Amino acid sequence: MKVGDRHYRTIWLDEGEPSKVHIIDQRSLPHVFKVETIVNVQEMTVAIADMHVRGAGLIGAAAGFGMYLAARAAAIEGHNFSQELHQAAKMLLDARPTAVNLAWAVQRQLDAMAQGQEVADKVSIAYQTARLIADEDANHCKSIGIQGLSLIKDLSKAKKGKPVNILTHCNAGWLAFVDYGSATAPIYAAHDTGIAVHVWVDETRPRNQGARLTAWELQEHQVPHTVISDNVGGHLMQNGLVDLVLVGTDRTTYTGDVANKIGTYLKALAAKDNGVPFYVALPSSTFDWNIKDGVAEIPIEQRDGREVKYIQGLHQNELKEVLLTPPESKAANFAFDVTPSRLISGLITERGICKASEASILELFPERKQ
Amino acid sequence: MKVGDRHYRTIWLDEGEPSKVHIIDQRSLPHVFKVETIVNVQEMTVAIADMHVRGAGLIGAAAGFGMYLAARAAAIEGHNFSQELHQAAKMLLDARPTAVNLAWAVQRQLDAMAQGQEVADKVSIAYQTARLIADEDANHCKSIGIQGLSLIKDLSKAKKGKPVNILTHCNAGWLAFVDYGSATAPIYAAHDTGIAVHVWVDETRPRNQGARLTAWELQEHQVPHTVISDNVGGHLMQNGLVDLVLVGTDRTTYTGDVANKIGTYLKALAAKDNGVPFYVALPSSTFDWNIKDGVAEIPIEQRDGREVKYIQGLHQNELKEVLLTPPESKAANFAFDVTPSRLISGLITERGICKASEASILELFPERKQ
Repeated sequence: MKVGDRHYRTIWLDEGEPSKVHIIDQRSLPHVFKVETIVNVQEMTVAIADMHVRGAGLIGAAAGFGMYLAARAAAIEGHNFSQELHQAAKMLLDARPTAVNLAWAVQRQLDAMAQGQEVADKVSIAYQTARLIADEDANHCKSIGIQGLSLIKDLSKAKKGKPVNILTHCNAGWLAFVDYGSATAPIYAAHDTGIAVHVWVDETRPRNQGARLTAWELQEHQVPHTVISDNVGGHLMQNGLVDLVLVGTDRTTYTGDVANKIGTYLKALAAKDNGVPFYVALPSSTFDWNIKDGVAEIPIEQRDGREVKYIQGLHQNELKEVLLTPPESKAANFAFDVTPSRLISGLITERGICKASEASILELFPERKQ
Repeated sequence: MKVGDRHYRTIWLDEGEPSKVHIIDQRSLPHVFKVETIVNVQEMTVAIADMHVRGAGLIGAAAGFGMYLAARAAAIEGHNFSQELHQAAKMLLDARPTAVNLAWAVQRQLDAMAQGQEVADKVSIAYQTARLIADEDANHCKSIGIQGLSLIKDLSKAKKGKPVNILTHCNAGWLAFVDYGSATAPIYAAHDTGIAVHVWVDETRPRNQGARLTAWELQEHQVPHTVISDNVGGHLMQNGLVDLVLVGTDRTTYTGDVANKIGTYLKALAAKDNGVPFYVALPSSTFDWNIKDGVAEIPIEQRDGREVKYIQGLHQNELKEVLLTPPESKAANFAFDVTPSRLISGLITERGICKASEASILELFPERKQ
């Protein structure tokens, strides 16, 4: 997507120096646009754990590039290649537990490299695979945009062209993927084809990915939007002010349960209570084909309570962090929750839209049938 | 309640100078404890509208004192007493539309003063009535504590003395009333009788009354508590980590619909979905005996979007305000939502606990039957 006049992805290999990966450091957005250079898997792990990069698809792509950097370093240093690679894999996997794309990308790299004979081959394979993961992610998101566009078109027709009000939670925008985004892809597609849309942006505490990242994306793309606190969605739905809820996911079971940013479940309950369609957009890399019961089985990341007690923002043109609570108060920071499939109207994937049920998902992905 | 070693109410008449009302300016809590002096109804209106004071009961008490200050000024200045009084009443009523205690207290003052013959009598009546409203509020909250204690006792027994986990939203603590609080009164009562409790404190965006005020109150009273973002409650309830949801209300219909701080409805949905008891505590002054359908009829205050875009906190021992969103993004700020009675397990009033239904409410308040 464009930032100002220039097209960016969220992560890319340096054109001249294949030892360098560039990322947009998302921690300082929307106030400062900063590109960071990553030169080894240790730095990539920190970038993932400390959320310089975040979001289902981008974490996967970052892990893919991280494994490539690890392979490259292990080859150059000449130690035990396989051992170093598995150490790197473990380090990456520990960085964030809930998003399945991370584990998926690491495993994909290990499987791909296993096909190479020589260390040099393995490094080339890792290079190719990292690029492939990133390209696939961007392409899948682009397809999600086309698939989801039909939903928004229908709502727009039903409203006789009046703006379609879409509520989204967290950032499932292009910043959460390599490009386009999942939940935002249909919104950009609709806006670009001249359909009137308006987005209610949940600020998404505690890290405010909505207020910081989704609002910034929409602002850059000139999509009409309004930032709201996470508490507001229920009231809006009760009063007919939301036509569609559209969110992303960090892990979706093959039965249709959806782990997404903490608070998603509450919006799904409100959508159900008010008959508002609730859709989840995801590239198929976000499916977990091994988990049946999302609430019972998906591991939920707990982050430092500090992220709840302190918040960063702009004060007189400088980024400052302020304390929000009594200094002595404890804070808990569960990063995700699970929305049971019964609350979900449908899933928007790169292959089409399906119901949040095992049968419907497997109809779109028949190769996963056992 | 105590602040350090000294007992405070949230609003009180100066002992020596009856022309002065003191309030705790809640805007700078928990970082700075500041007492403000109010000398006329204009200042009181600003204090209510800009939320130096807030909360159902306290707004009522502040309006009561505001009307007294208005009567006093009108008597001294010798203009048209009745006209000035009605202007003051209108000004106070316009300060905040959702909380019914405000209108209730203003009307109570007007009705009381109508009983006096001379202007001097009316001022004395206003003085007495203002004190009465405040005392009643404190007493009712104390009674709510005793009534609600039984609920927590039962849960504690069922858990064999393990801490009862109570989730609360916003601040329905003593800072929201004249003393004791509504939702917190049973919690303080339980804690003081040695029952183990732990409170999940919703931070309550955008104004963070939970993170700032409830956490501060609980910290001062040494009640174990954990601050969470508003997004977390659903996940906690899904995982058996909440035994009771206990909130306040700014207006409750005689049919049991509850207007409370924005986001309450979402927690009620999650409680219903997970079989967690959801109780609302209120002094009877918070009932609106004229409104039947809360969602359709209770006016919902919309405040400045600035309160969503900026937040105040402590930075290097100074209060600083930081910008959270892109500067160009719009923000909407609905201050309350309505929880339908079907989601509410019961109401805790000064007279006892009843169901959130017309029949059950009128059984406790038979004098309201028509």
